[in-house]
Amino acid sequence: MAKEQDKFKHVISHAKEYGYIFSSSEIYDGLSAVYDYGQNGVELKNNIKAYWWKSMVHLHEEIVGLDAAILMHPNTWKASGHVDAFNDPMIDNKDSKKRYRADVLVEDYAEKIEQKAQKEIAKAKKRFGDAFDEAEFVSTHPRVVKYRSQSKEILTRLATSLTNEDLDDVKALIEELEIACPVSGSRDWTKVRQFNLMFGTKLGASAESATDLYLRPETAQGIFVNFANVQKSGRLKIPFGIAQIGKAFRNEIVARQFIFRQREFEQMEMQYFVRPGEELKWFEHWKVLRTKWHQSLNLGEENYRFHDHEKMAHYANAATDIEFNFPFGFKELEGIHSRTDFDLKAHENLSGKKLQFFDPELGENYVPYVIETSIGLDRMFLAVFSSALQEETLKDGSSRTVLKLPSILAPVKAAVFPLLKKDGLPEIAKELLKELQWDFNVVYDEKDAVGRRYRRQDAAGTPFCITVDHDTKEDHCVTIRHRDTMEQQRVPMSEVKAIIQKEINFKTWLKS
Amino acid sequence: MAKEQDKFKHVISHAKEYGYIFSSSEIYDGLSAVYDYGQNGVELKNNIKAYWWKSMVHLHEEIVGLDAAILMHPNTWKASGHVDAFNDPMIDNKDSKKRYRADVLVEDYAEKIEQKAQKEIAKAKKRFGDAFDEAEFVSTHPRVVKYRSQSKEILTRLATSLTNEDLDDVKALIEELEIACPVSGSRDWTKVRQFNLMFGTKLGASAESATDLYLRPETAQGIFVNFANVQKSGRLKIPFGIAQIGKAFRNEIVARQFIFRQREFEQMEMQYFVRPGEELKWFEHWKVLRTKWHQSLNLGEENYRFHDHEKMAHYANAATDIEFNFPFGFKELEGIHSRTDFDLKAHENLSGKKLQFFDPELGENYVPYVIETSIGLDRMFLAVFSSALQEETLKDGSSRTVLKLPSILAPVKAAVFPLLKKDGLPEIAKELLKELQWDFNVVYDEKDAVGRRYRRQDAAGTPFCITVDHDTKEDHCVTIRHRDTMEQQRVPMSEVKAIIQKEINFKTWLKS
Repeated sequence: MAKEQDKFKHVISHAKEYGYIFSSSEIYDGLSAVYDYGQNGVELKNNIKAYWWKSMVHLHEEIVGLDAAILMHPNTWKASGHVDAFNDPMIDNKDSKKRYRADVLVEDYAEKIEQKAQKEIAKAKKRFGDAFDEAEFVSTHPRVVKYRSQSKEILTRLATSLTNEDLDDVKALIEELEIACPVSGSRDWTKVRQFNLMFGTKLGASAESATDLYLRPETAQGIFVNFANVQKSGRLKIPFGIAQIGKAFRNEIVARQFIFRQREFEQMEMQYFVRPGEELKWFEHWKVLRTKWHQSLNLGEENYRFHDHEKMAHYANAATDIEFNFPFGFKELEGIHSRTDFDLKAHENLSGKKLQFFDPELGENYVPYVIETSIGLDRMFLAVFSSALQEETLKDGSSRTVLKLPSILAPVKAAVFPLLKKDGLPEIAKELLKELQWDFNVVYDEKDAVGRRYRRQDAAGTPFCITVDHDTKEDHCVTIRHRDTMEQQRVPMSEVKAIIQKEINFKTWLKS
Repeated sequence: MAKEQDKFKHVISHAKEYGYIFSSSEIYDGLSAVYDYGQNGVELKNNIKAYWWKSMVHLHEEIVGLDAAILMHPNTWKASGHVDAFNDPMIDNKDSKKRYRADVLVEDYAEKIEQKAQKEIAKAKKRFGDAFDEAEFVSTHPRVVKYRSQSKEILTRLATSLTNEDLDDVKALIEELEIACPVSGSRDWTKVRQFNLMFGTKLGASAESATDLYLRPETAQGIFVNFANVQKSGRLKIPFGIAQIGKAFRNEIVARQFIFRQREFEQMEMQYFVRPGEELKWFEHWKVLRTKWHQSLNLGEENYRFHDHEKMAHYANAATDIEFNFPFGFKELEGIHSRTDFDLKAHENLSGKKLQFFDPELGENYVPYVIETSIGLDRMFLAVFSSALQEETLKDGSSRTVLKLPSILAPVKAAVFPLLKKDGLPEIAKELLKELQWDFNVVYDEKDAVGRRYRRQDAAGTPFCITVDHDTKEDHCVTIRHRDTMEQQRVPMSEVKAIIQKEINFKTWLKS
């Protein structure tokens, strides 16, 4: 755990040091759970977007893009259920004035009891060694049995109260357990209330009728309300998909884990419209395709796992998460959901507009079913960045920090160096730089010894360093040094572009 | 004027019909002054972004990117002056409950008087023909002299009241002129009040201290608050620039002209940090570079003009607009401003953090001066789209609608057709499609006669149509048909990619 925390701290500090991620408005001490992407961060983010867009839109004849606005008609969120049901149960401590998620307070309490059980188990394991029978111990040891049953009882009661929307009972539970505010230690709590997670704002159209708007809490609805416009103007036939990358906002009370859970975040979503009854076939299809996409980046198969949902959201009839091994453990990276016709039907009902497809093969109209693939762009960024950041011990015993980003995603593709800042080498290097700029994001560096420049580029994630030396003037060759293998290669200057292009193109990475 | 309005209507309806732009939440009758970009719109928008980013960031060694969040610490907007001064003077009619910009009501009134003078002039011009001396007429004709002096007097008084922030006098002026509400005809007005154009929202951190936030009304401040982080982590030396593309929001009361003035819009901005005293040299430099960028797209030199500001914003010491000839006349497309050190100094003062640069050549610290280039992405979209939409009469007397988008910006680069939907032609066409997909956004179409397919792609803006016919099976050649010239060319299938690539690449377009 300590090691994990160290790793996580390193990720955060490295992201700042190398211009990937800064706290938002840092000069004003930051805005909680909001981050800015720096000069390298914006390039990595753009490259992730392009990689997803190429794979999901341009390589699929039947999928098109969309860019709906963040501000939408408020009825959108009535139809989707967000106005009524996008809530967290909150409780305020009267002394500290701090607000908490009531369910998280109870869950944390139950977790502490579970930890006591874990401690007993660990102690016994140590004492008995190989002879230890964990199943036997857990089912007979009186304290462990007690802890386990207490914790289970608490969580069952919490689940029941939440299902019944009995917030008074959640409050009663907090009081019975004598849960205290972590800040003030006080047990003086307000009632438990539902708190809507949407950010509200007002559109000032006229004096008396300012319209209440919301910042969209998800991008999916932008696709659903545009379903008919896109289908008709694009002459699309089922099955077809609409893909979108865009910002969404959630007024999270407990936001944490760096860019993993932000109040302002970006989603990459695709809604795939299919014939009713065929949705589970397509659900499996998209699980396979999305898994392949992740595998194409080589972030390590062991860093991924699936989590199939047993409990579905009200709109879904199948759902799975692709989880990633973040520095703080396995957490959801992407969700694949069979959303049925819930959303389109809800919009039909509220708007009175038909959101149907005439299927020429069946000779009938229907509201299509929907498979959604939804990945958090910031989470993907964190997955790529954190798994790429490595400390390596080299053969000579020294160590280096290297950011082994997939080269297709790396912000800077190549750094061009003159060996020395004289003898006409900078001029040749700049000429090469100017030529490469047309196809790649490249940088120039002439400061410090070449070894130090290599280290800087390793830490920044640049896959190629290209050095112009005195021989270049005669043989028109340069040295390409590869980030991951540290191997060096002497090649004609005229071939540099093709060498980079051969490694960095969609086909090489996405073809499987 | 009628012709202009027809053209504008055609732009709007064509944008919808071909999947470029839809009204936001159209099924709920739309959200005023907010628009969604459809399947072709999102591609055109992305291509404009990429064209700007390539030119401004990747081709400039000394410029880097940034992607700051929309939500920022509220102090940002105190420092920038937006909390205090980002206002429009509003007045409400008590009968219709409609809200107006008070200054616009007065300006419209003055404009009507001016139109009376114009009418007199036109009448006289018609009567006197070639003998008409306009200067003489204008300075002596009693009614014209009277109208002109009335209108001038009104505008002078308005300007004085606004400069003095004397809103009561603006109200008095409206009453003296007996201006009526265009909706109700009523002259019963409220007071004139300042109305802040920022959208507000609340960050619910704790019960009593929800923080008031704003949706950023401009992207520039995200660059200024990150100045030190980017400069240090990027080891940047003055002069250097930080570029950003992102959304901004303004609660415009009078929003109109399609995507020209939206409540949610996107900016492409670059702030260039220079030595104090050198700002006017760089201001001229960026005027030249930005003009070249526009010229590279061949939208028609006659469609551009400069408008140098005589009256500056409080933070500027030089400012110019690049105006474009939109369907509703010449309006601002891009602004180039010499912002001095106003913003960085204001943030220094409020945050207490140093936002300075140590200049090794001068051996001193200073707050850099700033040149800003700021272009509205949606406006650029409208400029490109509206100037590209043309009705052409062909040699045979028939007409076609063609969207002559610069091919580097076109959403779809090529459409691949089988001549007929049989004889194995679709299979060959799809094979070609699959190969082109790796490098371009391409579509497949097998419906209707080829002539109709050409017209559809012309109207959608696709620069190349590629047809596979029966001969292709023997000679492995296809027909490429060019959108603008309508010329056809028989080429080996294996050369199609290179032919497209030769026309569609940054170097061809941006090199000058």
